[in-house]
Amino acid sequence: MKFNEEQVISEISSIFSPLNQKNPRVIVGIGDDAAVVSTDQHSVITTDMAIEDVHFKREWSSAYEIGSKITVANLADVYAMGADPRYLVVALTLTGTEDLDWIKALAQGIADTAAKSDAVVVGGDLSRADKIMISMTAVGASRLHITRSGARVGDSIYLSTLPGWSRAGLEILTKNLPESPAYARALSQFKSPHLDPTVMRSFKSAHALCDVSDSLFVQAKQISKASSVGLEIDTKKIEKSEGFADLAALAQTIGCDVWDLVLGGGEDHVLLATGVNLPGISIGRVFEGSTVKVLEMKKAPESWRHFN
Amino acid sequence: MKFNEEQVISEISSIFSPLNQKNPRVIVGIGDDAAVVSTDQHSVITTDMAIEDVHFKREWSSAYEIGSKITVANLADVYAMGADPRYLVVALTLTGTEDLDWIKALAQGIADTAAKSDAVVVGGDLSRADKIMISMTAVGASRLHITRSGARVGDSIYLSTLPGWSRAGLEILTKNLPESPAYARALSQFKSPHLDPTVMRSFKSAHALCDVSDSLFVQAKQISKASSVGLEIDTKKIEKSEGFADLAALAQTIGCDVWDLVLGGGEDHVLLATGVNLPGISIGRVFEGSTVKVLEMKKAPESWRHFN
Repeated sequence: MKFNEEQVISEISSIFSPLNQKNPRVIVGIGDDAAVVSTDQHSVITTDMAIEDVHFKREWSSAYEIGSKITVANLADVYAMGADPRYLVVALTLTGTEDLDWIKALAQGIADTAAKSDAVVVGGDLSRADKIMISMTAVGASRLHITRSGARVGDSIYLSTLPGWSRAGLEILTKNLPESPAYARALSQFKSPHLDPTVMRSFKSAHALCDVSDSLFVQAKQISKASSVGLEIDTKKIEKSEGFADLAALAQTIGCDVWDLVLGGGEDHVLLATGVNLPGISIGRVFEGSTVKVLEMKKAPESWRHFN
Repeated sequence: MKFNEEQVISEISSIFSPLNQKNPRVIVGIGDDAAVVSTDQHSVITTDMAIEDVHFKREWSSAYEIGSKITVANLADVYAMGADPRYLVVALTLTGTEDLDWIKALAQGIADTAAKSDAVVVGGDLSRADKIMISMTAVGASRLHITRSGARVGDSIYLSTLPGWSRAGLEILTKNLPESPAYARALSQFKSPHLDPTVMRSFKSAHALCDVSDSLFVQAKQISKASSVGLEIDTKKIEKSEGFADLAALAQTIGCDVWDLVLGGGEDHVLLATGVNLPGISIGRVFEGSTVKVLEMKKAPESWRHFN
């Protein structure tokens, strides 16, 4: 046993508590039975967990990256409702084999990523288990909210950025490919997906909005079903987007179909939106119907889901 | 594999979704990136998890009891801030060996226990792991809030009910004692602690308030430290409380010190309060000082903590 509970709580608190004290919306921060926070009239609540050897491996990712990644997953779900992230709580299990520095880096990855979106960790729970597990809940504030059910016939379909890099990173790690500078973007996106709050906030006039955590294809089907419309995705439009040529070249190098990455990949946490004159990449249109059509797609993408 | 993810989500949703639809405060319930809920100006947020073979064992407790117990732990933390529970999100890991009926009973235990406190599950996450883990976050509404730091010299100290039964139940199970009707209350309180919302709400005029989840002794020290006061607990007063004679007799039967149970036990989720003219059991007084004195205690209680 490398540390005791009090040490862990003390170290983690020293990362999160000063941020609580600086935030005027946090009335009672870490350390009581619950946190007390000031919220707008409507709150958005979401939860997402990461489990060792299911969602991450310690040999693949640093503690900082793991903390950042689960935070991005939660923040993205709040942004995907058209809301702004405000508060996070974190339940963490440790095995007892971690270094205290590893745990501090995990907490720092969470704190830094949250801070970029003006969100703050206000509480948590700590326990022992055979695997590391991070279960996070995010609460956001919304004056409006955007669900998956608002897509209208005639809307254009948008992606905030090109997805697929995270899935490519997973492929590289799974296949244990030798190191190469060509893999940097994909590995970085898998280990610690980039989330730009300014981009995420720029979709507040969307009619339907969700984050691509499962896969573009799966989430497009969810919007189609929830909105009772058809979605037509034009692969030719995606091919013109920033980075596509690089991703296609990478796919070839690592022996993947680029459309498996783009349509079947997840965990990039980009936004999928329908609406009019939105930013990002225009990838298709909403039509009267009930299916997701992918123009010029050769085969159905393999989606990547954890619970199978 | 006895079920697939879609079946599990469908079964769990059929338990929680109708309750979302009936609740006028739930604007967007289960099924989108996040739930949207209506909150009062201040919200209380807490998280608490339960892990198989750390906090519960499947051979000891039914799924319904396990679901109820982790819900009680979260609700109690909200009540312990003087707030009212409103919304829950649940992250659940399954091993794949569970029956679908077991999972449904777990969800039902959560739903029923939440409903008794007028709270509703508005979201969740599901994943695979080697052990079952339930990580829950509760959001409550508060117009006032009561922390651990409000105790004043001259306050009386109160317990909502006598703690120790849960710890006695754990002892019975750990020692694998033969079945006996005399164990019923302790076993029931360990497997599925009773929480009476009316009692929990009756402490809103307390000066300091917390829930006894670690142990009475540990939490009294937390109030003492947070409030910069001394707490004097009179065991003679506790001895006069409802059920004490029964608990003392049980302690003797199962080979425990009754004060280990009462002062060192946790997970009953009773409230510990300081104030004037509060309900429950008056157990002592707040004095000018910085320690927790337990009058006529023969030895320091062993507290029961999970992370050791």
